[in-house]
Amino acid sequence: MKKAVVLLSGGLDSATTAAIAISQGFEVHALSFSYGQRHLRELESSKAVAKSLGIHEHLVINFDMGQIGGSALTAPIDVPKGERPPEGGPIPVTYVPARNTVFLSFALGWAEVLEAPDIFIGANINDYSGYPDCRPEYLEAFEQMANLATKASVEGKKLHFRINAPLLRMTKAQIIKAGAALGVDYSLTWSCYDPQPDGRTCGRCDSCLFRAKGFEEAGITDPLLKKNKRGFIIQP
Amino acid sequence: MKKAVVLLSGGLDSATTAAIAISQGFEVHALSFSYGQRHLRELESSKAVAKSLGIHEHLVINFDMGQIGGSALTAPIDVPKGERPPEGGPIPVTYVPARNTVFLSFALGWAEVLEAPDIFIGANINDYSGYPDCRPEYLEAFEQMANLATKASVEGKKLHFRINAPLLRMTKAQIIKAGAALGVDYSLTWSCYDPQPDGRTCGRCDSCLFRAKGFEEAGITDPLLKKNKRGFIIQP
Repeated sequence: MKKAVVLLSGGLDSATTAAIAISQGFEVHALSFSYGQRHLRELESSKAVAKSLGIHEHLVINFDMGQIGGSALTAPIDVPKGERPPEGGPIPVTYVPARNTVFLSFALGWAEVLEAPDIFIGANINDYSGYPDCRPEYLEAFEQMANLATKASVEGKKLHFRINAPLLRMTKAQIIKAGAALGVDYSLTWSCYDPQPDGRTCGRCDSCLFRAKGFEEAGITDPLLKKNKRGFIIQP
Repeated sequence: MKKAVVLLSGGLDSATTAAIAISQGFEVHALSFSYGQRHLRELESSKAVAKSLGIHEHLVINFDMGQIGGSALTAPIDVPKGERPPEGGPIPVTYVPARNTVFLSFALGWAEVLEAPDIFIGANINDYSGYPDCRPEYLEAFEQMANLATKASVEGKKLHFRINAPLLRMTKAQIIKAGAALGVDYSLTWSCYDPQPDGRTCGRCDSCLFRAKGFEEAGITDPLLKKNKRGFIIQP
């Protein structure tokens, strides 16, 4: 069975990506990170999603990107609330410096050991916050570098690594519909950047807002959430 | 003062690289990793070297590449002994999958936060074990990727990252001479992949052998080591 390493955050994009990889016949080796993120809650979701999808193996690597800082997700900087970032506008402070590069680098190392040429990432360039490390030109450059970086890609050219981003040009609504068709249980996923002290989603960060927009446009009720009296999307 | 992030393992190459960066007028932010390496001893050296060179700041990031495995440095695989790997031969099992890619990725994230366009790495392609992630074509591909990966390189093009590898085409002897001229105290450095239970170097791994050859060719006595009765290079 052909193997793939899939980056699995526990959010809806990566859960859908994992389901797509499985539907394409891959034995999925899921990789998650405890990197000092404010929404560490997503790791519980990554475990529930991995179990629910029957993923072959799930590895969690720990480090602290808070040592580097520079992001509202890893440092004591407020998460912006209330409006989705405008397309083409400045990149919001929820951007984590070099995060996807660090994640893909670990995925590359694991893929080399597993002899798995395929790496999957849930990057997409619609309904997202404009992060540079989600763009196709970045992913292509990473793939090129990956094929010079490893013993397996050089010695006897045993492996040619491919960075697969099946969601790249899909809208959030299309992603949700595709995942729903593949049986992804979105009640297990977690998107909120700023979990509240009572354990609920904040309903107002970029990630909550993109999620809400996606479910609305897909005409599907988000099984994780409902609106509260003030109209914010929260967990029941 | 212009800033640089310098990968500092505690070995002689990275110590020399840091000294070169300082001699070029950089404020050095040194980055080391506790990554589950068998020779964790090198971290003590990285701290001593940083102190001795008067490095501005030294950060150690922790994770466990042993979770991925695939290398004699991070998994229970014997470190080869007794012969330097032949040029153009197979890459030895001391290769750690995607290690330099992971290290450079963290360096990139930190460089972005520090607004430091220059990243230094002690890679070189003479007197080395043939690791793919030390070659110029790899470093160029990483640099290209880095300049698409970050907010700072995209938004207003505030930073253009450069991967500096000043030792790239030097022999080990040339490196040692250059470092000695810059006042690097090599007695503080550590190269051995397989520290012995008594805390000494093994004297017979690739890294010990390249170090010994370098000092011999440079006509300098390695201040860390001497030969024992059986002719092996060991710590006094």
